[in-house]
Amino acid sequence: MNLIILTEADRTGDGEFTLSDHRAIHIRKVLRGAAGETVEVGLLNGPVGTASIAEISSQKVVLKIAEWRAMPGLGYRVDLICAIPRPKTLKKVLTVSAMMGVRAVHFVRANRTDKSYVTSSFLHQPDCLPYLYDGLSQGKFTQLPEIAVHPLFRPFVEDELPILYPTETGSCKLICELSTTPRLGETLAQDSSTRFVIVIGPEGGWVPFETELILKAGFRPFCLGPWMLRVETAVTAALAQLDLVVSSRRR
Amino acid sequence: MNLIILTEADRTGDGEFTLSDHRAIHIRKVLRGAAGETVEVGLLNGPVGTASIAEISSQKVVLKIAEWRAMPGLGYRVDLICAIPRPKTLKKVLTVSAMMGVRAVHFVRANRTDKSYVTSSFLHQPDCLPYLYDGLSQGKFTQLPEIAVHPLFRPFVEDELPILYPTETGSCKLICELSTTPRLGETLAQDSSTRFVIVIGPEGGWVPFETELILKAGFRPFCLGPWMLRVETAVTAALAQLDLVVSSRRR
Repeated sequence: MNLIILTEADRTGDGEFTLSDHRAIHIRKVLRGAAGETVEVGLLNGPVGTASIAEISSQKVVLKIAEWRAMPGLGYRVDLICAIPRPKTLKKVLTVSAMMGVRAVHFVRANRTDKSYVTSSFLHQPDCLPYLYDGLSQGKFTQLPEIAVHPLFRPFVEDELPILYPTETGSCKLICELSTTPRLGETLAQDSSTRFVIVIGPEGGWVPFETELILKAGFRPFCLGPWMLRVETAVTAALAQLDLVVSSRRR
Repeated sequence: MNLIILTEADRTGDGEFTLSDHRAIHIRKVLRGAAGETVEVGLLNGPVGTASIAEISSQKVVLKIAEWRAMPGLGYRVDLICAIPRPKTLKKVLTVSAMMGVRAVHFVRANRTDKSYVTSSFLHQPDCLPYLYDGLSQGKFTQLPEIAVHPLFRPFVEDELPILYPTETGSCKLICELSTTPRLGETLAQDSSTRFVIVIGPEGGWVPFETELILKAGFRPFCLGPWMLRVETAVTAALAQLDLVVSSRRR
């Protein structure tokens, strides 16, 4: 935990937060915190800051906020659209998305999505929260990514996506594809967007009908590299490359 | 498994390989292979190819090679130097390194490496092999990354690194650092290397003495982005960004 994530439910006074769950254990056992010492904290969907340990015992840890400051963000907004993966992969996608500052993840049922995956409880609160909080804590972000589930592929791509990401407002829509397509630097050569949405396919890839529909919806293809990556690894690679390309535009 | 990795130990005849372990189960249960069908295979440290299923039963799967072809590589060589992480992270670093075509990983004991991690059996064969094979199978590579362990930091950096990666022969030496340092595109702006070695720090980072020694050994710093990433996520992000920068040089 690089940041202890606090929520309004933890608030027990003016600038005071009381923890008694795994965060309290982390402060005691991993950080070996003692009364008077400070820890880095973040308020869920709010600022980051430092807090001093006012009280620490095996029952609870009481934190007093010393200072709040605005959370430094990415400088752009990035959302993901992912085929619903198996639960083990889903948890990793949730964590890495939160860790890398993704603002929304749309999970959509793909042709290659196993029927049972669609009903996974980890697609919804509260079961997805531990993975999102874990990512926020690691990445030092406080903005909880919005998680949405779309069980019907075609209506989502044809009807919902144009409303969620209207081209007119400058959303840059991207789809990761294997080989033969341009690299991200070329795809974004003429682009000055500050809002991005990236489509990541399922293990085994989209079926041709799905790819066609996504391309028809205005998504521009790019190739991550010469690899076949696992879904969560592809998410990391895509976000890492996007940040590199966006940062090079700023120079 | 995007590629069934075969070894010389599996060879039972001229162009014939017989499997009876988890690979046989994968061909039967996941690929639902039947006699006469083909599967994609790779020979460890050798070519890739296609093989037809000559025989399939609950006991074994016999494959006959139809065709071998040279393994398409990255077009450059990349090695990693990682602080020895805890075993859970180590396994992920092994898998992702093999998946993304890394040729050698040097694990070095850092100040922040827990003493117990140094003796982990997963740093050595045979315990590291399942994770490496898993990565090769996923990434469709056949070259087994070389894994080396260096329990003494200073002699490794001062004495071994200059021999392993002599600057004169064009090895480009890089170290991932947090913030304030240039991005990879800038670090490599004047570079035309085809051999890279990237240093990835431990959770919590190198101590200043370690960073100084690495910089003194000729490693150039770059910043991955605005995140605090887990070790295995940092490995993926660094390799993804390196490939993007190298590919843009080729245009």
